[in-house]
Formats: sequence, C-alpha cells, structure tokens
Amino acid sequence: MRYVRFIADGRLHTGYADEDRLIDESGRAYHQDAVVWLPPVTPTKVVGLVLNYAEHAKELGLETPKDPVLFFKPLTSLIGHRAPIVYPTGVTQLHYEVELGVVIGRRCRNVKAEQARDVIRGYTVANDVTARDFITNYFRPPVKAKGFDTFGPLGPWVVEDEDIDPDNLTLRAYVNGELRQEGHTSNLIHKVGPIIEYISAFMTLEPDDVILTGTPEGISFVQPGDTLRVEVVGIGALENPIVAEHAEGTV
Amino acid sequence: MRYVRFIADGRLHTGYADEDRLIDESGRAYHQDAVVWLPPVTPTKVVGLVLNYAEHAKELGLETPKDPVLFFKPLTSLIGHRAPIVYPTGVTQLHYEVELGVVIGRRCRNVKAEQARDVIRGYTVANDVTARDFITNYFRPPVKAKGFDTFGPLGPWVVEDEDIDPDNLTLRAYVNGELRQEGHTSNLIHKVGPIIEYISAFMTLEPDDVILTGTPEGISFVQPGDTLRVEVVGIGALENPIVAEHAEGTV
Repeated sequence: MRYVRFIADGRLHTGYADEDRLIDESGRAYHQDAVVWLPPVTPTKVVGLVLNYAEHAKELGLETPKDPVLFFKPLTSLIGHRAPIVYPTGVTQLHYEVELGVVIGRRCRNVKAEQARDVIRGYTVANDVTARDFITNYFRPPVKAKGFDTFGPLGPWVVEDEDIDPDNLTLRAYVNGELRQEGHTSNLIHKVGPIIEYISAFMTLEPDDVILTGTPEGISFVQPGDTLRVEVVGIGALENPIVAEHAEGTV
Repeated sequence: MRYVRFIADGRLHTGYADEDRLIDESGRAYHQDAVVWLPPVTPTKVVGLVLNYAEHAKELGLETPKDPVLFFKPLTSLIGHRAPIVYPTGVTQLHYEVELGVVIGRRCRNVKAEQARDVIRGYTVANDVTARDFITNYFRPPVKAKGFDTFGPLGPWVVEDEDIDPDNLTLRAYVNGELRQEGHTSNLIHKVGPIIEYISAFMTLEPDDVILTGTPEGISFVQPGDTLRVEVVGIGALENPIVAEHAEGTV
C-alpha cells in the first residue's frame, strides 16, 4: 500500500494512491493532478547520513568515516511531491541528493540490526537538497546547508510492503529528464539495519520519524527553472521544480 | 509569569509557578515537590549554537567562527526540572553547559535583529549536556554527542516578561553545590537578536521552538551521582541528578 497525505477541497486528507488516483479516508477518489501533495508523514525528526556511499565521498574528495555521520533535517524543510524548491537568493551551489527514506513504525530504543525490520513502517523517497555554499568551515555544520525551508522534498508516499529489501534498491536522479545520479543501496557503507542500531543506541526513534540513508555519487549543481526527479525504483518518484526566491513582498 | 507543564495525579497539567506551588489550568495548587516537572514547552525544534562565548572557545582550544555554528538538539533529549540525566555506559567525558534558552512566540521567517523581541515568547534555562567522547573527527557532528535521550534538561519554566533584557543576564552552573561555570550574556558573540535574524533568514521558526544561545567557559567532566544545577539569574534554576545507565532489563 502506498500511503499519502494531501490537500483537496481546502482540507487535509490521508489515504492511499491507486494508479493515478488518490483515495481519501472516506473512499472518495481524486485525480492526482487535482490535489496538493503533502509529505506523506509528519515525523518528529528526520535524521540523515552524510558520506554513506564510498563513491560519493570520493567525488567530494573526502574520506569515508568509520561511524555513521549524522545530521538533522528540520521539519520546516519538508515539502511534498510537486511542491517547489525555493532557490535562495545569493546561493550558487545548490544540488539534489536522491536518497532512500526509511519510515519508523514504532517508538523504539536499543534496536539491534537484525531486529530493525520490526520497527520499520515503510519506505519513501527523499531529496536531500543541499546548498554547498554553506559547507565551508572546519565544523561543517550542515544545519544551514541542508536546512532551508523547502530543502526536504519527501514522498510521494510511504510504501508499506514486507517484501521490500532496503539493501537492494536502485536510486536515480534526473535534472530536466536527464539522468545525472544513479546508485544502489547494496553500496551503502552503513546499511539500514546497522543505521537503526547505531541511532537507536543513543536516541529514541518515534513513529513516522524518517531516516535519510545517504546519497550515491552523481551530484551536480542546478538552477531555478530546473525540475528535479528523484526515484527509488519500486518505491516511487518525487518531482519538484526549482523556483527562484521571490524578492520581499512579491509573493 | 512563569509558565510550567507538569504531571500530577497521573495527568498532564499546564499552568504557572507561584512561590513553591504550581497552579494548574483549573486553579488548583500543587506543592512543587508533589509533581513531575516536564519541559515547559513542546517545541518542533531546538536549535543550539556552539562556541558563542570567546572564552569557552578558548578553553576548548578552538577559534571562534565568524557566523553562528548551529546544531539541532533532538526533542527526545528533552527532560524537565529534577528528571535524571542518564550517563551512558562507555562514556567518559560528559559535561554540563548552562545556557539561556529563548522560546519563540510565533511562526516567523526573515526576522530582523531589531524586530526579534516581537517573536520571542519568553526565556528558559537549558543544560546542553554533551558527551565529548563523540566530538572527535573532522566533521564534529554533534548529533550523537548532544543527542542522547535525557541530554536536554529544560525549564523549570518559561518566563514571559517584557522587561527581561536577554543581553544582560548572568549564567551559573553548579556541580554538587560547587560553582563551576559562570558567564554573562553580554559576552555572547552572537546576541539574541542577531541569532534570530541569522536562523530565520533560512528556516521558519515556530511557536515554542527553542534557541540555545551557547555556553560560557567553565565546563568540567561530571559523573553518575553528581547533581547539576544550571541557573540564569532572574529566569530560574534547573536541577538534575546524573544516574548511571541501567544494564539492560533492570529498569
């Protein structure tokens, strides 16, 4: 089942996607072009990993760290399928990052890697939009670089399916239809089970919390006017246009 | 007014502190020793600054950065007044950090420093507990170091008072009654107004979001059995004992 959240007729709906229609909580169907897509979950936190594919670390000229390197993506960065990513004024190095998103299903702590599947609700697709302009100093705090409003496209849905193997998924990112990034979760340095073990060893995970598992090689800079499509084959594809930040007062 | 959240008779209450009593939403009074104190707010995010006092940067042997260096404290780290801080098994370098906490009053973006007071709901006291063990590599990701469950004591209350000058407050931290850390917000490198301008320039702030403004010099390592008291004079004092992590299954 592909679970969605959307706005239609001025109201919030939750339901599921069925071909090109979205079915709401009352069974009513909407064409997918007739709704505003929202992020499919409302997490209490979004935890990401940087440098979790060796080839991506290499393209950045960085060594791969031994332990997972974590960051938080603020909830205010989250947007749904088709919502615009705002390209901030002054930024010059904005890139997409296609990632497998893992959605947590229940409150948990101290989960062992072998038991991780028990706490996973499902999977989604994430675009960890990053303004590299702000990753410059010794501290490399990604809060600003990855934390702008709209820098967290998520969706279009959460797929709940016990047959999905998170360690065997293909990821692709397209800019204006051109394939730019391709990877496979079998190349994750820290795989989904060990990531959940590492995080939950010090921090409680809560229902609908999202883990962004890292991005493969193939990032490139994009511009206002471009359209990003990030896809995890078998999960879904998330499309978002990039728009320039409006001058103050013109929205 | 000093606003509180607490558990009494098995239920959540919100209200205010009046001398040594807490008054709930119905006007009923409880002795402050008869309740379980909760963090006084339920934020959607907690944003902290590192190295925001020059003398503290010096004691760590670090240069003070030009721009604010931000991190997120996970909501799962938050605890209230008197709740125990759990000292994780294997950690050897745990320290307290007394900080002025700024509580946001309304959803806002692009706030200028001079207008920052308009979006501030009030002030609270925070202890940015940190396991320095995990601040070791080039990336210095503070997610784990500052993100353990219970590493975010906050409270005892939010003080709403227009006469409070956030740039003129004394901070102190005591370990078992002994003064270890003392500072003054007049020495903040980035003061409250400019911090809110910096953060809100890229990220929406929401009601009850908390900004941790940084800690002055005077950190030292503490142990299970110690009691921490962090105080912002004129705002309040937050006391939390440190307990050893229980072996699995003994809670």
